Amino acid sequence: MADYTPPLRDIKFVLRHIVDLDEIIGYPGYEHVDPETVDGALDEAGRFMAEVVAPTNRIGDEIGATWADGHVTTPEAFKDAWRKYVDAGWSAVTGPPEYGGHGFPETVGFAVSEMFVSANLAFSLNPMLTGSAITVIRDHADEDIRDTYLEKLITAEWTGTMVLTEPEAGSDVGALRTKATPNDDGTYLINGSKIFITWGDHDLADNIIHLVLARLPDAPPGTRGISLFVVPKMLVNDDGTVGKWNNVETVSIEHKLGIHGSPTCVQAYDNSIGYLIGEPNRGMFYMFAMMNQARREVGLEGLGISDRAYQQAVEYAQERTQGRAIGTPKTEVSPIIEHPDVRRMLMTMKAYNEAARGLLYDTAGAGERMHRHPEEAGRQAGSDRVALLTPVAKAWCTDIGVEMTSIGVQVHGGMGYVEETGAAQHYRDARITPIYEGTNGIQAIDLALRKLPMDGGSIVRSYLAEIAALVAPLSESGDPRLEAIGNSLTTSVAALRDATEWLLACEDPNDKLAGATPYLKMFGIVAGGYYLARLALAANGEDPDPWLEAKIDTATFYAQQLLPTALGLVPSVEAGAAGLFSIPVEGLETAK
Amino acid sequence: MADYTPPLRDIKFVLRHIVDLDEIIGYPGYEHVDPETVDGALDEAGRFMAEVVAPTNRIGDEIGATWADGHVTTPEAFKDAWRKYVDAGWSAVTGPPEYGGHGFPETVGFAVSEMFVSANLAFSLNPMLTGSAITVIRDHADEDIRDTYLEKLITAEWTGTMVLTEPEAGSDVGALRTKATPNDDGTYLINGSKIFITWGDHDLADNIIHLVLARLPDAPPGTRGISLFVVPKMLVNDDGTVGKWNNVETVSIEHKLGIHGSPTCVQAYDNSIGYLIGEPNRGMFYMFAMMNQARREVGLEGLGISDRAYQQAVEYAQERTQGRAIGTPKTEVSPIIEHPDVRRMLMTMKAYNEAARGLLYDTAGAGERMHRHPEEAGRQAGSDRVALLTPVAKAWCTDIGVEMTSIGVQVHGGMGYVEETGAAQHYRDARITPIYEGTNGIQAIDLALRKLPMDGGSIVRSYLAEIAALVAPLSESGDPRLEAIGNSLTTSVAALRDATEWLLACEDPNDKLAGATPYLKMFGIVAGGYYLARLALAANGEDPDPWLEAKIDTATFYAQQLLPTALGLVPSVEAGAAGLFSIPVEGLETAK
Repeated sequence: MADYTPPLRDIKFVLRHIVDLDEIIGYPGYEHVDPETVDGALDEAGRFMAEVVAPTNRIGDEIGATWADGHVTTPEAFKDAWRKYVDAGWSAVTGPPEYGGHGFPETVGFAVSEMFVSANLAFSLNPMLTGSAITVIRDHADEDIRDTYLEKLITAEWTGTMVLTEPEAGSDVGALRTKATPNDDGTYLINGSKIFITWGDHDLADNIIHLVLARLPDAPPGTRGISLFVVPKMLVNDDGTVGKWNNVETVSIEHKLGIHGSPTCVQAYDNSIGYLIGEPNRGMFYMFAMMNQARREVGLEGLGISDRAYQQAVEYAQERTQGRAIGTPKTEVSPIIEHPDVRRMLMTMKAYNEAARGLLYDTAGAGERMHRHPEEAGRQAGSDRVALLTPVAKAWCTDIGVEMTSIGVQVHGGMGYVEETGAAQHYRDARITPIYEGTNGIQAIDLALRKLPMDGGSIVRSYLAEIAALVAPLSESGDPRLEAIGNSLTTSVAALRDATEWLLACEDPNDKLAGATPYLKMFGIVAGGYYLARLALAANGEDPDPWLEAKIDTATFYAQQLLPTALGLVPSVEAGAAGLFSIPVEGLETAK
Repeated sequence: MADYTPPLRDIKFVLRHIVDLDEIIGYPGYEHVDPETVDGALDEAGRFMAEVVAPTNRIGDEIGATWADGHVTTPEAFKDAWRKYVDAGWSAVTGPPEYGGHGFPETVGFAVSEMFVSANLAFSLNPMLTGSAITVIRDHADEDIRDTYLEKLITAEWTGTMVLTEPEAGSDVGALRTKATPNDDGTYLINGSKIFITWGDHDLADNIIHLVLARLPDAPPGTRGISLFVVPKMLVNDDGTVGKWNNVETVSIEHKLGIHGSPTCVQAYDNSIGYLIGEPNRGMFYMFAMMNQARREVGLEGLGISDRAYQQAVEYAQERTQGRAIGTPKTEVSPIIEHPDVRRMLMTMKAYNEAARGLLYDTAGAGERMHRHPEEAGRQAGSDRVALLTPVAKAWCTDIGVEMTSIGVQVHGGMGYVEETGAAQHYRDARITPIYEGTNGIQAIDLALRKLPMDGGSIVRSYLAEIAALVAPLSESGDPRLEAIGNSLTTSVAALRDATEWLLACEDPNDKLAGATPYLKMFGIVAGGYYLARLALAANGEDPDPWLEAKIDTATFYAQQLLPTALGLVPSVEAGAAGLFSIPVEGLETAK
């Protein structure tokens, strides 16, 4: 089992050159933040994740969260790491100071999250969900609710969950049936069954604050009749202490392919007391407002686990000897990292990971600008970019997580299939990320049908123009490697533009739906090339050093070998739906 | 958990139109075989696999093979199915009649194997390995050994294994260190440790016949100093009964990502008595002779498990309702199979599976001709095709197995991540197939460095010419769908030809090694399109029926949407090794 090395230099480079964190910390509200403090916090967070959290990853997989008599128990190692996490204040990095937070920019919190995910994905989901609950309560709940819950959630004394899914209401959230009945005192009685509640119960905190979607009596059908409630596991006394149990029963937990350390709960709400957040029937609106954040964080999970798998593969490939690379003396054996095919696997992982990091952090930076930019135009630009890139950041980066962890297994050969090695755990853990927080198919539909037409197509067009505009500085750099990257980008962005215009002009929604997934993949591949090119250009501008040279080499490899695969996707984007439906359903069944 | 439907009509269609089984059963030695008997045997085998074997798949995963005190125990359900398997004579389908076999063509046995794999991959590995042992003993062992072991292996009274790998000798078999010391009586004492012995111990049969690679004293180093021995778990008495234990100790079994029902053993040979097969130092030659068979059977595992995953996904997509497809009344919900993106996933699985089946069975048919064709030219043609296609059949079809089982999980959404559903098992089980029996990287190197240059490149060139020659009948069919398939094939085979010539002309072995994996993928995609086109053409020639129409639709989907992805791989085939090595090893490590 490899150690985890926090990729601090990569993260800081992206924060500087993609996010422009120096600009962000100049925004109002960040007066207390300076670059040195950020650097120090990231270094310290990296150390914490590597030393305290990373060693719990295998333990969490092997022991897993367990359920008995309505209660979830986590591994002992989790309890210890959690206590240190809370004590060190890592949960509060981005929280508002008035509620006990440290008030760092969201992008700094995003970087801390990346390292947390790499260290232990299953474990990191608890703070991740808590962060979503914090956002919703902070932005939409009344002062009473904020005062009762926010500080305790920010300091991680309590944790939070998102309680959306029901057996018949997964991707189609509007089909949910959980009921909320008003009491005379302004509270509600919540009744219903919920599934797939991540960290819905555990023994790390004194209370768990559930954000529950439910229907009021006579609510309109579908998504417009859904309201959002705070339903604490334990009722909170007037003095803020934990009171009696609120009839939130954890009925069972799922036996899953991976993320064994994260309890996925089936819950029954039986006259549990809930507190309405905001206005009735606005639950989906509040959820959507939080969803961009949650979706880029799931995209980040794809990167985080892929990076951990990459690090482990690089380490194994140096240790494992087998055969002789070309030119190796007959009396020697070579570490497999000297074999071109193994090197291809590692370069592929490295390049996709760094491309994904660029995309993800740009999305997170836009999220920060959306809220914090001092000018309306800046906030709007941030909002537009968040809207456009979120589905790509979520889906493309999680698909990469699955594919790269699979390569990580392959680098290990037979040892990769043996669980003790740990490579297989990454492969299993990663597989949830294309599914939850909106399947990647849903993301593709969001991109193709909702995001492309925004503002008459001008949002996507200006993003593509931004990519195309990078070609000039690449060409003018005088470095033939950067010129070559620019040439490859020119070809691929032109193909993406054609595919985009095809979708924008397409009038049959089924044809758009049919092309959505290959389009999103194309978009991701080209965007990835764009961010790597920006990093290469930035590297070119600094004093040469091997690490900066590697940035140019990585972008070159990607531009030359991975970016062209985008071109092969054009036909399926533009094929329309007919070819998908030409065989009737019964024809898809196997004939004896 | 979905039932398994043996794809009998697909298999028979491929046996007829790709393999030309009617020709094969006219070869000497198959006088007792006629088409009706073959059809009946396949029907019966399909029924057996579906009814008896398929229900053991989840049990095998959940209970798994277990080890205690040097012995492996299999689930009770395996013992029952195994007894029925032996009693029904399925193990003996292809065995020579003089040793108790039914003497069916190898391709018929291949079809039975496909259904066995789909029914229970982990379970099927025991007969699969036994089949390899049978081939080696039949072709290379002396009469004494043949008489002692062959009939009992063919009737599955005993089973066989392949004992190659050692901790330091995986892909590099030549590094093995197990010793064979001659006794005065012509036997040998075998001493050494072996790992990754599939079905190396179990409780299904009275004896297990290990084929063990070991070094004689003073053997040359590397692969030219390896000899092959029969080492039975239990010594065999002169009367053929099972005698005393032969000191083959099963030290432990691996805790693996998947195929839990298949015990993967660590073994210690401690003065175990072995019997030399053939001549000293020829072990690798005998192994290679069997390896083509084993490798296409592993490729078949990729298909078999992918087909099972596909069937389950089709069933789930019809049952699961969520959202409304375009045009569905507001009061209704749609089965997800009506959503274009889900349909894309299913069509992708279906098309790749049928493409893989064409490639695999053509390879198996060539293997049969290599041995059985009445004319030397026919045997040579078979041998050439086996040599060329085996690495593609192994690697491409197992990569497909991994990718398609991943799609199978995705179709199930959140339920796909829950182990009880069974979709995740296919995903875990499939992951071994790109690794064992020569990693897919090794297959790519075999293709690019050893197979392409065969006969000065004429073998691969004539295969590509055969693909190109299909365009004429497609064009002349008068069916615009077939013409379109032909056009797509023309473009992609031209690209594959260019890439092939690039590799043939390339003088730097590192550059060839660098391009090997993307080249193999390209080759597989184009070959897959070729077989689907042949099937479409064959379907076009028969009386129309929806099943035959679906063959044309599947080929159309593939030609239009999947085949073009081959074009995106050309740059990485031809990029050379420099881009893979531009970053030094230490630069691949993560910087803090």
